[in-house]
Amino acid sequence: MKIMNIRNEVRKMKEDSPKMAALSLETRNQALKAAALALQEHKEEIFQANKEDMEAAKAAQVLPSVMKRLKFDEEKLKAVTEGMEQLRKLPDPLSKVQLARKLDENLNLYRVTCPIGVIGVIFEARPDALVQISSLCIKSGNCAVLKGGKETARTNKVLFEIIYQAVTKCGLPKGCMLQAEQHQEIDELLSCHDCVDLLIPRGSNSFVQYIMNHTKIPVMGHADGVCHIYVDNSYDIKKAIPVLVDAKTQYTAACNAVETLLVNRQIAQEFLTEAEKALKAAGVSIRGTKEVQQMIECEEMQEEDFHTEYLDMTISVKIVEDVEEAIYHINKYGSHHTDCILSENQENVEKFMQLVDSAGVYHNCSTRFADGFRYGFGAEVGISTGKIHARGPVGLEGLVTYKYKLFGQGQTVQDYALGKKAFHFEEINEEEK
Amino acid sequence: MKIMNIRNEVRKMKEDSPKMAALSLETRNQALKAAALALQEHKEEIFQANKEDMEAAKAAQVLPSVMKRLKFDEEKLKAVTEGMEQLRKLPDPLSKVQLARKLDENLNLYRVTCPIGVIGVIFEARPDALVQISSLCIKSGNCAVLKGGKETARTNKVLFEIIYQAVTKCGLPKGCMLQAEQHQEIDELLSCHDCVDLLIPRGSNSFVQYIMNHTKIPVMGHADGVCHIYVDNSYDIKKAIPVLVDAKTQYTAACNAVETLLVNRQIAQEFLTEAEKALKAAGVSIRGTKEVQQMIECEEMQEEDFHTEYLDMTISVKIVEDVEEAIYHINKYGSHHTDCILSENQENVEKFMQLVDSAGVYHNCSTRFADGFRYGFGAEVGISTGKIHARGPVGLEGLVTYKYKLFGQGQTVQDYALGKKAFHFEEINEEEK
Repeated sequence: MKIMNIRNEVRKMKEDSPKMAALSLETRNQALKAAALALQEHKEEIFQANKEDMEAAKAAQVLPSVMKRLKFDEEKLKAVTEGMEQLRKLPDPLSKVQLARKLDENLNLYRVTCPIGVIGVIFEARPDALVQISSLCIKSGNCAVLKGGKETARTNKVLFEIIYQAVTKCGLPKGCMLQAEQHQEIDELLSCHDCVDLLIPRGSNSFVQYIMNHTKIPVMGHADGVCHIYVDNSYDIKKAIPVLVDAKTQYTAACNAVETLLVNRQIAQEFLTEAEKALKAAGVSIRGTKEVQQMIECEEMQEEDFHTEYLDMTISVKIVEDVEEAIYHINKYGSHHTDCILSENQENVEKFMQLVDSAGVYHNCSTRFADGFRYGFGAEVGISTGKIHARGPVGLEGLVTYKYKLFGQGQTVQDYALGKKAFHFEEINEEEK
Repeated sequence: MKIMNIRNEVRKMKEDSPKMAALSLETRNQALKAAALALQEHKEEIFQANKEDMEAAKAAQVLPSVMKRLKFDEEKLKAVTEGMEQLRKLPDPLSKVQLARKLDENLNLYRVTCPIGVIGVIFEARPDALVQISSLCIKSGNCAVLKGGKETARTNKVLFEIIYQAVTKCGLPKGCMLQAEQHQEIDELLSCHDCVDLLIPRGSNSFVQYIMNHTKIPVMGHADGVCHIYVDNSYDIKKAIPVLVDAKTQYTAACNAVETLLVNRQIAQEFLTEAEKALKAAGVSIRGTKEVQQMIECEEMQEEDFHTEYLDMTISVKIVEDVEEAIYHINKYGSHHTDCILSENQENVEKFMQLVDSAGVYHNCSTRFADGFRYGFGAEVGISTGKIHARGPVGLEGLVTYKYKLFGQGQTVQDYALGKKAFHFEEINEEEK
């Protein structure tokens, strides 16, 4: 087996990244179009490779829930190529002038968006992630190092080759994309902090945690998704039950599924009686505090369960005194992902929306809405629970930074320091840019 | 000596941070005003403490250049209180609606700016930094852990107490600010990644590097400032010489001072002859490649000098073939801080501005302009050479993040997944917000 020297490849990529950044929108959009077309033209090769991956996974007794994620069929192809088409139509995230300011006569400052540079994406399973992420990087002028899960190594390889051939034919530099195929290359990639500007890991908690703990490269993503629903004393049962059931059961493996239910003591008995019926009917097993156990039939839970992301048909339930205690609990035990209040009391809603320190704070709707597509971003890089750079579902914006361009006519700082000249700040308006 | 348990204090601060975030602009501005007033009222105490610090530093034979930075006198007080007044007048960085989108009927998404939370600031020397940073944190609703240099421990303590008393009287929560006084508390602070959201180190390279290598908390700042000036074949000598001298000598200890001069081969002999005179007259010692040594009298330099931030009256000089080689050199050896082209050729200027991968790319002006005040930001948190979050001189914007608020009426994702409902994205305009 060939072991690629990732470090050298990534270094070359870094050198190519300014060329990638300088491509016109037209070229980047053409590349997206060509790649989508090529995927469709070569779909039989992709499906064949995926079939082999699926067979190997089956032989290795991979869980059915995981098998579903490994699959790349006509439906997935349609979804990713439609996504590419949507992405193509989105406005250019680059060269946006965020600030244009005259500092003094003939000394003009501009803040202009530009790509981040080299992005490392490490994902488990889901071969469609490879297509999504590389498309996002193309649109935003970033070079991408892609490392997919070993379960779909054949599918990933075919997908990568098809996209790479198509986009380099459109004028993208050689170093625009790179595929890491060996597992041991992950650690090498993690050590490339001089060439890789950002890492985006997508996968299980422990996987993301491993990445975060073993690199000096900034990491965008989230390890945990411990999301909460708080049912206030003034709630609407017609909204509360469907939202709760949806948030827990619509897709339990997602990071935005709810894990903990907090219920206001005043309405706990009446609400929990209804909630128990609905949750159990949907196949959810309930774990409650001692107080909850006195109200409904459920397993007893421990304090550490409040930290647990079940990713399964299980929910923790706790009684709280009021919205303040709910907020305190969420800020203490939550993962700052997405948390919801079910309430008809405007004051409590506002308090919750203001004081809960999470990327998403929701009122009367399912936490499962936390997703780039549902937010209308056209595409999603991932969901970030960090507060630095991008937060929540991250679209193209999360893949750009900016640079300051200053145009002068020979100005020195000394003239300003000595008072010979003075700054005259003035915004440059649209027409003069 | 009392050893404070920083971890417990920071944890309490974290709990207070949502309260800090919820303060009205009026309260935050009142706090700034009260703090500035209190500093003026207690100025004699500050000057007395600073006098003691200065005497101790003198006895410890601290270098005169450092002594200047330790000083906190009438002039420094005026500068910081004026800065606070400017900051007070700046628009609120919080609660700005960055996105308002109807996802579907009665399902409205807002992206609203909010504070980052708890910011740790570790700085060497310069007691005025304590005032600046705490003011910025107050304005932006962030809690701040402050650790100043031991040389001005007395001054820092007095400054902190005055500000803390003034702002808590105005209604800021107890946990709004915290001062770490012991050096060993730095390592404890670096380990508080569960409570501290961002670290801002200000100090020497090795100091910042140490911070960056010893924490999982995101760090905003820069370790190196290896800035370049490239003199193109079509340059204007009347602009080039003053800019070069200013960039090298106006304040050599600054990160935005130039360290390496790149000169186009075609004009190298004529330009270097003039540059040598001007630089030497200003007291600069020149280190050149062998090729440079054949043109002017200078010391011989080694390849590693290209990585060196002299922070002193020394400059490296190299001949390059063209703007492309200059760009290649800068991207390879530079620190992505601020780099300048001196040229009258529009095409080369554009190429340089586009392809140099630095926070600041300058045309015909001194690199020393890279500074928040000179950019008209009113205040500066620091200069970032990272590309994630904030880049270049960072003002208040660098201290805020955002959260997504989603308001619904009981919507579930399942309805959209099953096609019973569909998203109808529509921007919500200003009036409807």
